Amino acid sequence: MKEITGTTRLYGILADPIHHVKTPQRLNEYFAQLGHDGVCVPFHVTPDNLATVVAGLRQLRNLGGFIVTVPHKTAILQLADEASDATTLIGAANVVRREPDGRLVADMLDGEGFVRGVLTAGHELQGKTAYMAGAGGAANAIAFALVKAGVASLTIANRTSAKALDLKQRILTLYPDAQIQVGTPDPSGHQIVINATSLGLADGDALPLDVSRLTPDQLVCEIIMQPKDTALLQAAQARGCRIHYGAPMLACQIPLMAQALGVPGAGQ
Amino acid sequence: MKEITGTTRLYGILADPIHHVKTPQRLNEYFAQLGHDGVCVPFHVTPDNLATVVAGLRQLRNLGGFIVTVPHKTAILQLADEASDATTLIGAANVVRREPDGRLVADMLDGEGFVRGVLTAGHELQGKTAYMAGAGGAANAIAFALVKAGVASLTIANRTSAKALDLKQRILTLYPDAQIQVGTPDPSGHQIVINATSLGLADGDALPLDVSRLTPDQLVCEIIMQPKDTALLQAAQARGCRIHYGAPMLACQIPLMAQALGVPGAGQ
Repeated sequence: MKEITGTTRLYGILADPIHHVKTPQRLNEYFAQLGHDGVCVPFHVTPDNLATVVAGLRQLRNLGGFIVTVPHKTAILQLADEASDATTLIGAANVVRREPDGRLVADMLDGEGFVRGVLTAGHELQGKTAYMAGAGGAANAIAFALVKAGVASLTIANRTSAKALDLKQRILTLYPDAQIQVGTPDPSGHQIVINATSLGLADGDALPLDVSRLTPDQLVCEIIMQPKDTALLQAAQARGCRIHYGAPMLACQIPLMAQALGVPGAGQ
Repeated sequence: MKEITGTTRLYGILADPIHHVKTPQRLNEYFAQLGHDGVCVPFHVTPDNLATVVAGLRQLRNLGGFIVTVPHKTAILQLADEASDATTLIGAANVVRREPDGRLVADMLDGEGFVRGVLTAGHELQGKTAYMAGAGGAANAIAFALVKAGVASLTIANRTSAKALDLKQRILTLYPDAQIQVGTPDPSGHQIVINATSLGLADGDALPLDVSRLTPDQLVCEIIMQPKDTALLQAAQARGCRIHYGAPMLACQIPLMAQALGVPGAGQ
């Protein structure tokens, strides 16, 4: 990392708790790679103070913007001045760029990060049939990104099917021709199978889908990073599927985050 | 510098302009020396936005505090919750510690930094007669610190003598037995002579005092860092005086600043 001086551009990550975040390490490493005179630091803020902190950050003239993570991804959208159509429809953001006049521009890159991770691993998405378990925060971002990436169809399966239907309708607002179905726990008949729920994070979690219906021609993808080998991925491997881990979703977002923050040369 | 992670404690410096500040470099070097997991970054804020930014910083739970420099040293005192008696009487602060409950405690270390610099260079202050040109921001801080350091007497000389008298009276509020006089441009008869004005900063500035009255037994001290050899110091050397440069005032403040910010093990 370059020495921090009076000319160093400032970036942050808003989170609560904060101790576990890995974004400062990764963004600072990427800045060094680009030769960018910038530094990303942790900003620990609780939900009740988010608006006050963001009002202050807005007036920091050397602030390029900030990353946003749990539990602020939904609330931050109300505090931003601008967001892409997809971000608004997703209803959450994880990066906010500060314009020179103080305007805050929000973006949601979780889905783009997931897509980029899958593509970088050498898999295809365009023209493929996709099945996604979940309709929560991460699932929303991933669904929009999958449709944008050109999947032939997307099946959304969620315990509360009303939430899956609601997500479908929001995607159709932006992509009227998209092929979206509300599905069941059975993932069979799809080329790409994705767990976009938090099931698998805790020991003893139920499986996010009916693994007995997985077939060897399928690619099974996780968004959970810890543990690396979730019960779903273990079952998928046992059934002969190819698998894709949770980690690349975040790792592949770093260049996208830097690009969204306005860092020169970022995003390649 | 240690890698910045989610556990890194955050510190800043508030200034406008910001590009020239050297405190991040020096504090970060000192943190590394102490093995402290902390980082100091620049916070560029204009006077009209100071209150909003400070309100936001107050709610950053991993913020240890911040350094304050031009043009915010006076305004910051109104935004702090607490200050030492001397800082309140000086009417300016240059360091603010953030307590775990969000309370902001202000302190003024410019004077202590000057005193520590003079003592570290091997000169004595206790029992000495001192002459100080100036009654502005820096002079206020230095005057309180000189009296605290035990000078036998202090003569304050200022173009507008009402300001010198006002400073004298504020010092007497805290140190009723202090020997303080309002002086003239003539520094003769004092053991320590200090320029605490900004005269000498710009080419062609008038001299801050009557150098023709300097005598070889005197120690002549500067607070101006750039240029290093001011016209006053050159004249003092030509007249056989010992001299003390402006730089130590800031350099010697770094451990004091870290201590005031609550950094473990700082201040030795």
